[in-house]
Amino acid sequence: MVATKMFELGNKRSAIRSLFDYGQEQAKIVGKENVFDFSIGNPTVPAPDCVKETIIDLLNTCTSVEINGYTPAPGDPEVRQSLADYMNKTYDAGVKGANFYMTCGASASLAITLKSLVEEEDDEIVVIAPFFPEYRVFINNAGGKLVMVPPDTEHFQLDLEKLAAALTVKTKAVIINTPNNPSGTVYSAETLAGLGTLLKEKSAQLGHPIYLISDEPYREIIYDGLPILYVPKFYANTIVCYSYSKSLSLPGNRVGYILIPDEVAGSKELFTTVCGAGRSMGFVCAPNLYQKVVGKCTGQTGDVGIYDANRKLLYNGLTEIGYDCVYPSGAFYLFLKAPDGNSNQFTENAKKFNLLVVPGDEFGCPGYNRVSYCVDPDMIKRSMKAFKELYALYQ
Amino acid sequence: MVATKMFELGNKRSAIRSLFDYGQEQAKIVGKENVFDFSIGNPTVPAPDCVKETIIDLLNTCTSVEINGYTPAPGDPEVRQSLADYMNKTYDAGVKGANFYMTCGASASLAITLKSLVEEEDDEIVVIAPFFPEYRVFINNAGGKLVMVPPDTEHFQLDLEKLAAALTVKTKAVIINTPNNPSGTVYSAETLAGLGTLLKEKSAQLGHPIYLISDEPYREIIYDGLPILYVPKFYANTIVCYSYSKSLSLPGNRVGYILIPDEVAGSKELFTTVCGAGRSMGFVCAPNLYQKVVGKCTGQTGDVGIYDANRKLLYNGLTEIGYDCVYPSGAFYLFLKAPDGNSNQFTENAKKFNLLVVPGDEFGCPGYNRVSYCVDPDMIKRSMKAFKELYALYQ
Repeated sequence: MVATKMFELGNKRSAIRSLFDYGQEQAKIVGKENVFDFSIGNPTVPAPDCVKETIIDLLNTCTSVEINGYTPAPGDPEVRQSLADYMNKTYDAGVKGANFYMTCGASASLAITLKSLVEEEDDEIVVIAPFFPEYRVFINNAGGKLVMVPPDTEHFQLDLEKLAAALTVKTKAVIINTPNNPSGTVYSAETLAGLGTLLKEKSAQLGHPIYLISDEPYREIIYDGLPILYVPKFYANTIVCYSYSKSLSLPGNRVGYILIPDEVAGSKELFTTVCGAGRSMGFVCAPNLYQKVVGKCTGQTGDVGIYDANRKLLYNGLTEIGYDCVYPSGAFYLFLKAPDGNSNQFTENAKKFNLLVVPGDEFGCPGYNRVSYCVDPDMIKRSMKAFKELYALYQ
Repeated sequence: MVATKMFELGNKRSAIRSLFDYGQEQAKIVGKENVFDFSIGNPTVPAPDCVKETIIDLLNTCTSVEINGYTPAPGDPEVRQSLADYMNKTYDAGVKGANFYMTCGASASLAITLKSLVEEEDDEIVVIAPFFPEYRVFINNAGGKLVMVPPDTEHFQLDLEKLAAALTVKTKAVIINTPNNPSGTVYSAETLAGLGTLLKEKSAQLGHPIYLISDEPYREIIYDGLPILYVPKFYANTIVCYSYSKSLSLPGNRVGYILIPDEVAGSKELFTTVCGAGRSMGFVCAPNLYQKVVGKCTGQTGDVGIYDANRKLLYNGLTEIGYDCVYPSGAFYLFLKAPDGNSNQFTENAKKFNLLVVPGDEFGCPGYNRVSYCVDPDMIKRSMKAFKELYALYQ
């Protein structure tokens, strides 16, 4: 009677959401302080002061229609110019305001971009494991076919040979996500350079441009002084999908963008297509007030130092116990190897100690579990006893 | 190379948007004060004070995570409860918070609802002319087929015989829009009662429920003391698609809802499907801050008296000149009959006098032109000379 696939999608809770709900229930039984919920990637660091200050300033200086009226579909022209200025100053990006299409956050950026690229039912979108599970949902929505490149479990960079093998005449785009959810790794300049060379060669060989979708909501959440790399510098046909959800801690107010630099093949045509795809799904414009907020606050972040302290606490604590962990360089996730390689069982065992961690299977990377550390540092400290007892099960 | 249909959609400006752009250009040539732009339905009445007050109050009393964090996908539970309380108090609706799915405005409400209902490629969605042109876009996006019922040009109510003839075993839903864009008419209790009876009979006869989608962004913008009717009272299988864009003058901040009362056939399954459809298109949640704003301000409106004064000014002025106009009872549109029945030519002729009015063809109702009166009252006064000269062309 209703759209079956949409029903299934609404009915099938993600493993992450199910664990989170389990934690809420369990808290009622054993007490909130005894549940160690590392399941969700919901920023806990407050938005920088600039956000509140900008809203108050806008309320005091703008008319209601200026703040609450429609913006053009691709976004407020002044905001787009301000984002271009920032990208040019910071990354020497050479972009204009007209290259930005403002969206209702990363999910909208991805859903719209994919809907713009997929033309035929068997058009392929290549994802690199481990990958954000909603990619599958948005690729399905666009009518495309997901092709997964197996994970590089040695360095959690990118296995270029395996990627090369996955590229076909049907490949429309490759999605990368760095800093990565769930592995917490950051692609090196070498990795990106190799990727750029491969995609350029393969595009020439296959006779059509392969687009690179750079999904980078964690761009600025990066540690150890690692440089932030501007992906289009490594490959011209790069579409940047960005969100302010993590950098400015604004996930609920839904604002991000799609950036299509002029260097992208058919950039003008693609931009027009993005406008059409957004329109078709009922995105009229990104929220006006928060567009203006990010126009003022772009380049600022919440206090990444809090995540960094959590990262060290967790990584040091877990490796001391004996766990094998991927060294986290960005985002706010740690990827932990299940001692016996069974990540679903590890998640089940962890629940016995009220520890909530997500099996990597959900991300196309069985054998690992994701531990989100955008949490209260006290919870990390209190959880160590439980992690120790869990580890003992495997000895 | 890109998704052709999305390119076409992005490339094809709506007649409304093209006229608006033409007016902006023309203003540079003849002066802003000499262009009479009646093309766009963009609220000019400021949001009620409650909006600004609520935002300031939230900024002062809530944490950043409370205001800026994710809400659950269907919306903030307290907000949904507050909307239910309001609907119950005002319309004796008998609904719960759990019946509401918060959206990014009316377009999102419609796109998600249609995506939830269309299962097979030839599933039919019935629209009643004159109708909002984006219905076609959202029906296409859902993969359904638009079936148009010709307009009732006598009363601009609803020709039930023609509607009955349009209903088939393939009919999934009928969309109504009252107060209507573009005709400015409001369906009477008799019309809705007749519609309810017909849909009930036809559902029984065809062996499946025909859903009624009540698209009502103009619900509270209604004149002459007409009562606001709660459509589900007239037909149980009604899904209400609402937006605060017009009532609270918040079109740029994208907040509305889909209301699926328990009485709707398969309401729980349908609600789950709506969650899936929203997820598939990348709607994570409606903007958190503005959800909370409408939770506080629901039931208030901008100053409808301003629109009412405009309505009288325009209707009296135009009928005095000699134009044949549909009497406007709601929304902020007046539907004017092209004197020779050629609405496209009328729009072209009007441009000679720098008058911008939209041909009804766009709305499935040739022979009429839409005049939006959410404009500066002075512009209405200044435009009368031009309307008079335009009328003289036809004498």
